[in-house]
Amino acid sequence: MDRSGSYGKRIDLNCDLGESFGVYRLGADEQMLGIVTSANIACGYHAGDPATMRKTVRLCLERGVAIGAHPGLPDLSGFGRRTMSVSPQEAYDMTLYQIGALYAFVRAEGGTLDHVKPHGALYHMAEADTALAEAIAAAVYRFDPELMLFGLAGGVLVEAGRRIGLRAVRELFADRRYAADGSLVPRDRPDALIADPKEAAAQVLRLVREGRGETVCVHGDTPRAAEFARAVRDALEADGVTVGGIEPDRSM
Amino acid sequence: MDRSGSYGKRIDLNCDLGESFGVYRLGADEQMLGIVTSANIACGYHAGDPATMRKTVRLCLERGVAIGAHPGLPDLSGFGRRTMSVSPQEAYDMTLYQIGALYAFVRAEGGTLDHVKPHGALYHMAEADTALAEAIAAAVYRFDPELMLFGLAGGVLVEAGRRIGLRAVRELFADRRYAADGSLVPRDRPDALIADPKEAAAQVLRLVREGRGETVCVHGDTPRAAEFARAVRDALEADGVTVGGIEPDRSM
Amino acid sequence: MDRSGSYGKRIDLNCDLGESFGVYRLGADEQMLGIVTSANIACGYHAGDPATMRKTVRLCLERGVAIGAHPGLPDLSGFGRRTMSVSPQEAYDMTLYQIGALYAFVRAEGGTLDHVKPHGALYHMAEADTALAEAIAAAVYRFDPELMLFGLAGGVLVEAGRRIGLRAVRELFADRRYAADGSLVPRDRPDALIADPKEAAAQVLRLVREGRGETVCVHGDTPRAAEFARAVRDALEADGVTVGGIEPDRSM
Amino acid sequence: MDRSGSYGKRIDLNCDLGESFGVYRLGADEQMLGIVTSANIACGYHAGDPATMRKTVRLCLERGVAIGAHPGLPDLSGFGRRTMSVSPQEAYDMTLYQIGALYAFVRAEGGTLDHVKPHGALYHMAEADTALAEAIAAAVYRFDPELMLFGLAGGVLVEAGRRIGLRAVRELFADRRYAADGSLVPRDRPDALIADPKEAAAQVLRLVREGRGETVCVHGDTPRAAEFARAVRDALEADGVTVGGIEPDRSM
Repeated sequence: MDRSGSYGKRIDLNCDLGESFGVYRLGADEQMLGIVTSANIACGYHAGDPATMRKTVRLCLERGVAIGAHPGLPDLSGFGRRTMSVSPQEAYDMTLYQIGALYAFVRAEGGTLDHVKPHGALYHMAEADTALAEAIAAAVYRFDPELMLFGLAGGVLVEAGRRIGLRAVRELFADRRYAADGSLVPRDRPDALIADPKEAAAQVLRLVREGRGETVCVHGDTPRAAEFARAVRDALEADGVTVGGIEPDRSM
Repeated sequence: MDRSGSYGKRIDLNCDLGESFGVYRLGADEQMLGIVTSANIACGYHAGDPATMRKTVRLCLERGVAIGAHPGLPDLSGFGRRTMSVSPQEAYDMTLYQIGALYAFVRAEGGTLDHVKPHGALYHMAEADTALAEAIAAAVYRFDPELMLFGLAGGVLVEAGRRIGLRAVRELFADRRYAADGSLVPRDRPDALIADPKEAAAQVLRLVREGRGETVCVHGDTPRAAEFARAVRDALEADGVTVGGIEPDRSM
Repeated sequence: MDRSGSYGKRIDLNCDLGESFGVYRLGADEQMLGIVTSANIACGYHAGDPATMRKTVRLCLERGVAIGAHPGLPDLSGFGRRTMSVSPQEAYDMTLYQIGALYAFVRAEGGTLDHVKPHGALYHMAEADTALAEAIAAAVYRFDPELMLFGLAGGVLVEAGRRIGLRAVRELFADRRYAADGSLVPRDRPDALIADPKEAAAQVLRLVREGRGETVCVHGDTPRAAEFARAVRDALEADGVTVGGIEPDRSM
Repeated sequence: MDRSGSYGKRIDLNCDLGESFGVYRLGADEQMLGIVTSANIACGYHAGDPATMRKTVRLCLERGVAIGAHPGLPDLSGFGRRTMSVSPQEAYDMTLYQIGALYAFVRAEGGTLDHVKPHGALYHMAEADTALAEAIAAAVYRFDPELMLFGLAGGVLVEAGRRIGLRAVRELFADRRYAADGSLVPRDRPDALIADPKEAAAQVLRLVREGRGETVCVHGDTPRAAEFARAVRDALEADGVTVGGIEPDRSM
């Protein structure tokens, strides 16, 4: 099979959603649900609450967006962005807890939980620590070996997921610049970010055609972010790419 | 079938467990797991945390104790004992969230979730408000219609559970006195509590033989409570009663 | 002294501020600080966090707005709006804790803490329960007998504050309708709210001239609320009223 | 002045207290208050709650034990022991918040707040990061420049405290072994801990006589820890040392 032909025809776009809490609203969720094909829904630790989880799950089901759990560190005041020295056992436990909490809403609404993507500092900590990544992968696997695990393309989470037998999905970031070898340009470099959606879409297309990832993360925290995401999607579709959820083929 | 003969030969004993939190230890869990046949495990709102939930689920599976979720109000500092004016929708959401969180540990350990019993103020609020009871019953039912719902014998939760199609289990309290008509003697009455385990066991036996309940709550918060529970169980067994989990017969 | 002349020339406008939390923004604080003369700053229980408290205190000092503590119930997910069955001792403790926490930022910035106004359900619970009102008043008094206590005009908090020796300030609500006798028209009545700022200002003026209150609560949760508050202030000033903080005269 | 004579005649013993939370009990507080001369009282972030703070402050005042605030990271489930990547600004804010909260109870009871000692991971993080230490010292200083700051003898907190103008008190640990040069034997060394209270007392005596510290930390988490602390105090007193709070002399 012609590799260049098989890749790049279909791309998943994912976004963190359901990050409101109590009276506090966050994120252009309604808008993003018309753009992305996979949603990572906060589970109450770094953001989200039961009511928000229920509403977000329902919206995903109505809009045909695939549902993932987005477990984070127990740090609501820091939005799960502050590194914490949690043990692998603690990471396992908190991941499992949050997967189950979200699963309850998905099950109650008659839907399917498709994937898990750790949030913020938990994601970054796992990418920097194999034992944490393995603990998170174990929590996902023990809950349901059919769940997909999203992790940094070329990173530790994906590797840990594959080792335990999960389908691990390689994530790319639409607004980050990648070097020719597929590695992320570090955040402290002046050219780390891409502001032009056309340029972002072109990069996404190249990376996916090179077989470097299956899902692309876009943000929805601000109206401007949503506009960017929409422009990336439009540019991809203008290029003949199908923007759709991860296909159920498990052979990859 | 002779109804008076079918009742009273088998009684379920249940206890709230897994109510430790972080470094804080609470309850004689190890001891109680040798006495009771059903455990109501805290789910992180009024007490409990992911590590405690995992450990308690494992202990239940090792000891053959049936596992239930014990959802409470989001009030860790008040141990879920303070009435809060939550709406039925909020009660539904928090119940579902907590059922899912505990379910994740049960599923990861290869066990089965058997029942749900609301904790403390949530239990009492539901017994006093049909809309809350219905919301809780709906959360249980939508998660899994095979789950049992524990509620006050003769009370509102049991009624709400039955209406929606759940198997509702009527709960009696070993250390509370019941009037001849099966109603609880109010707490502010001097004879509200029973201190003698033999007397408690005799009352339990009478109530169960009269068909007034299927499960009996015993406490394990203090060493003395555990002794009481053990003495009640011993007295029941001395009377020829089988202390065992709720039987899977769904025809009752 | 001519009573009718002394009242109504000066009115305090107060608003709840500093109710953001972590990444979550709430309230048009910047805008409101140009309208009101007293700020009730959230203290971390129902809303607010240390960073928000510091920033809000600084803004108040820069803008010359009097600073009050705005203690609430420990219910971040419910924004302190859900009634909870807390004991008077618990109300005392949580009020004292939150006053101290806010005071620290005021002291560190070289300012003065002027008043305390309970938030949401804690306010309403105190107005309906003398023991709670007395506990809150005691917490304020024991921290500093020079602090003012804001409570419903004609209500229980003000009465409890006066009994213990505090200067109690009677609060009116700009957007609520008052009957001829100075009582609030109940919320479930169709005419409970006033939408027209001119009408609100006229009512405020009448109530203050009748000596029914010293401070008027305006809201800043939404841009529209801030516009309303601005219009009320403009209308008052057009009527020759000085909108200014509560005067230090303790003889009233 | 004869240095060997001036030092070592008086030693302060400090202990972390008030670390219960809600229904959860922790620490042999009653017992420790008969042993130590300074208490570090938890402020509600890593442990403690308003009721516990009030009770502990009262006990300290009754027993003549000096009162300090013991601020920690916002991590109740981890007891403030997990390192978190907080910024200096966040450390400043959370320290100030917690000092104020404890101060409120001290003030309401007519006592005096004497010192501040960061808890657990916050303490260790500050000892490893000058910017964090300076932020904590600034919070203490801006609240009250007369407060003492407790930090590791020879460490970064003490240095930061002195630079800003605080009286910084050098802390030694009774159950840890010190090398001849006054440095702590690392925890991973087999001889890191001292189990014999006589040996601990002898080491404390030597270190204090060498002028290496003014306060000695003893633990009260377990009955055995309290016994150890009592034996250390007895051995010190048998050696002619006065165990008493830090003296108000600011010239040291």
